[in-house]
Amino acid sequence: MFEAAELDHKVTKADYKREEPELRRALLQAQRDLGAQQRFPVLILIAGIEGAGKSETVHLLNEWLDPRFIEVTGFALPTEEEAAHPPMWRFWRALPPKGRIGVFFGAWQTMPILERVMGRLGADGFAARMEEILRLERMLAEEGVLLVKYWFHLSKGQQRKRIRALEKEKETSWKVTRYDRALFERYDDFRAVCDPFLRETSTGEAPWTVVPAADDRYRALFVGRHLLGTLRARLDAPAPPKPPPAKPFTVPPPDRLNVIRALTLRQEMSRADYDRALVEAQARLARATRHKRYGKISVIGVFEGNDAAGKGGAVRRLGAALDPRAYRIVPVAAPTEEERAQPYLWRFWRHVPRPGRLTIFDRSWYGRVLVERVEGFAAEADWRRAYAEINDFEGQLVTHGAVVAKFWLAISKDEQHRRFQEREATPFKRHKITEEDWRNREKWDAYEEAVCEMVERTSTGQAPWTLVEADNKLHARVKVVTTLADMLEAALKRAK
Amino acid sequence: MFEAAELDHKVTKADYKREEPELRRALLQAQRDLGAQQRFPVLILIAGIEGAGKSETVHLLNEWLDPRFIEVTGFALPTEEEAAHPPMWRFWRALPPKGRIGVFFGAWQTMPILERVMGRLGADGFAARMEEILRLERMLAEEGVLLVKYWFHLSKGQQRKRIRALEKEKETSWKVTRYDRALFERYDDFRAVCDPFLRETSTGEAPWTVVPAADDRYRALFVGRHLLGTLRARLDAPAPPKPPPAKPFTVPPPDRLNVIRALTLRQEMSRADYDRALVEAQARLARATRHKRYGKISVIGVFEGNDAAGKGGAVRRLGAALDPRAYRIVPVAAPTEEERAQPYLWRFWRHVPRPGRLTIFDRSWYGRVLVERVEGFAAEADWRRAYAEINDFEGQLVTHGAVVAKFWLAISKDEQHRRFQEREATPFKRHKITEEDWRNREKWDAYEEAVCEMVERTSTGQAPWTLVEADNKLHARVKVVTTLADMLEAALKRAK
Repeated sequence: MFEAAELDHKVTKADYKREEPELRRALLQAQRDLGAQQRFPVLILIAGIEGAGKSETVHLLNEWLDPRFIEVTGFALPTEEEAAHPPMWRFWRALPPKGRIGVFFGAWQTMPILERVMGRLGADGFAARMEEILRLERMLAEEGVLLVKYWFHLSKGQQRKRIRALEKEKETSWKVTRYDRALFERYDDFRAVCDPFLRETSTGEAPWTVVPAADDRYRALFVGRHLLGTLRARLDAPAPPKPPPAKPFTVPPPDRLNVIRALTLRQEMSRADYDRALVEAQARLARATRHKRYGKISVIGVFEGNDAAGKGGAVRRLGAALDPRAYRIVPVAAPTEEERAQPYLWRFWRHVPRPGRLTIFDRSWYGRVLVERVEGFAAEADWRRAYAEINDFEGQLVTHGAVVAKFWLAISKDEQHRRFQEREATPFKRHKITEEDWRNREKWDAYEEAVCEMVERTSTGQAPWTLVEADNKLHARVKVVTTLADMLEAALKRAK
Repeated sequence: MFEAAELDHKVTKADYKREEPELRRALLQAQRDLGAQQRFPVLILIAGIEGAGKSETVHLLNEWLDPRFIEVTGFALPTEEEAAHPPMWRFWRALPPKGRIGVFFGAWQTMPILERVMGRLGADGFAARMEEILRLERMLAEEGVLLVKYWFHLSKGQQRKRIRALEKEKETSWKVTRYDRALFERYDDFRAVCDPFLRETSTGEAPWTVVPAADDRYRALFVGRHLLGTLRARLDAPAPPKPPPAKPFTVPPPDRLNVIRALTLRQEMSRADYDRALVEAQARLARATRHKRYGKISVIGVFEGNDAAGKGGAVRRLGAALDPRAYRIVPVAAPTEEERAQPYLWRFWRHVPRPGRLTIFDRSWYGRVLVERVEGFAAEADWRRAYAEINDFEGQLVTHGAVVAKFWLAISKDEQHRRFQEREATPFKRHKITEEDWRNREKWDAYEEAVCEMVERTSTGQAPWTLVEADNKLHARVKVVTTLADMLEAALKRAK
């Protein structure tokens, strides 16, 4: 693994000077083509051992490339804001959009390796953390991100030589800190952890490239040539052939019964019962959000449902119970240009709340397996893998202490028809109904199939779906507020 | 996840009788098409909770399908032979070949779930085991296996009802064992483990399908319809478009130095030194294989190298030190028809030795990233993912106590030329040299690139490569035998 890096590589000054100008020119051209194509983002991970020229390489990339289209993010210990979010949040925030290059310095590999070397993480825990990394990287790759992972390496002898050389000169001896010396003492421990790390997190789509780092000029040309080759290979590759569109395969249940049809959509509720029940549920919710342990949990409400099922009305009844400063409603429509330039979960990661906050998504990441599936906006392979990706995303939220409450508001086809007509007849509601709503109705069965599979695959112990019978809006609203109050009270108990 | 399965599904006798004959006919037809196409194997996993009709379903499949082309394997506690191999070995042995259907009953999911429920496996350990399963299933899927995973489910109420009904009748009460009752007591514990298991091991390419199991007829039709739909979707899918062949992307090292070129291929060794050193190394090897702890480890020797580099001669010098009953040489040539019908690692898994045994692979699984890469027999994506798959395979061997010793025998282009000519001039060696050998020589640089990347990606702490300078055969043989003796002695020390 490190055999090639530990050879006595050397590039003379003359050779370097001869090659560098053309390399820079070609790299700049590749960067321009990347920006012109706008087809994929490039994410460069800079990792490896201390003192192996990582910062120098980042400086060099900034010098060689057009710095307006390259963004370097260094990750140190998490800031207060970062620590208030799931660990992967800070990396999602910094992802480069299509057409651009992002450089991550000390990304997701740093903490697991350090913790393993320090003995704070056992073998199984380390394996679990590597698995999280594998999932993230696989998803990024499947979303089209070109991941280029550089691991800067020095042999023990090379490392020793480097420290001695720096120490000898007065002008450079300050560069060798106590931390450097302490790390060198543990060289063998690091190597024993990095070996399995590199082995396990090198995949076909995102392998590590070990950079021989002892010779400055060799290292520079190596990275330059490798980056250029990687960029050009992807830029010049013909667009992959599109798989022929196929009707997604689902099995109709032999008795035609499914989780939606099993619901009694019209539930009786008198106005008086409604007033009483709603006030009571809102009061419980208000108390829960003012509880002293509320600061330990965050709340994420997800609202999906048939068109005109009353999502907005239910959300407003929730909000009425809450301090307006303590919650946010995120309406999810078609993605913006900025959002389309990112992996599909990016625009939801942005809005993940910190502890003590509540965020309501009015439509959500489930668009991937609902509208994008039914309308063919996403390829079958893409929405099929989304179930696992979504479970993984929600798992990260829950692990970090979030309550994820997901509501599907279901109405009958007749009730929807009635509401559409009512909307058209009411001047101040007319804007809420469009041609598209009528078109969606024609795909009622396809949507029902998609909803059933969504529930089947993403209603999990960590984040279950609540199916809400919504032909009677009063019942629906009470059920939503009551369910959320139940979930919050249970979470507060667990947070003890 | 279990919402649909816990609905009150029912199929009447009349409906069942109406549907079943046509379903059987269509399933048989699909099975015939599968056999005729010979394009992919089908592996059905039967899993889920006790008493949910798993055996009945397997009987039914055997009845509905042509039993000559379907093979059911039930996995219970490992046999003595199975326990003597890495845990995944017994599953590899039973994989169905292309064109056939294999049914695994109690496969790789059983032990991790049981151990987790019993508390013998912590959360991290469970996550690590799930990760192993994900890797295996992903590789099978990438190798073309159609994985169909059924999870048979009963709600707690349905389970209780079933046990009561069986107990009530004299003819069926024997079916309810103490084990059944004990499992039912732990229903909630199982559910708490199965929920994350299903969530984490459902992927786009190999999702779990939860089977509503309470009603016998519903369950039968559900599985039948689902299996038929899955088979037909794959059988009828147009062959996926082939990506255009591309020259694999590698970066020439800026100073042209690589691990092969860094070797001094001709090493001096006198015949007298050779005789003495070889006898000494062979004696050490012989002692090691007779050591009382040798029964705890297995030894796997992998020999790769340039054509005519002297692999055979080195292997014979190894063998000379060993009890002929205690080792095997597996010569690896082009795969047989039976082997081509399986994932590429299958033919090597067959030969994994048990503890106390030594197996030498004369050429090996590395063909995937050498000849198959250079000659274009494997697509770039396939050999690129092979590095991780191979590291994973070797990791399983090492974890099980194997010593994996990998030798690359390197000769110079000139020396190879000399040996080829010598072979052609020597009557009893002439059969060893073919037109193909001469053709391979023309691709010398491509092979060298492939070897360097192989060493870079698969020389790991768990299974390092030993590069053997082989222009002088005497040196090469001594280095091989000595290295293996070193590795064995070290392993025996660790096995204490």
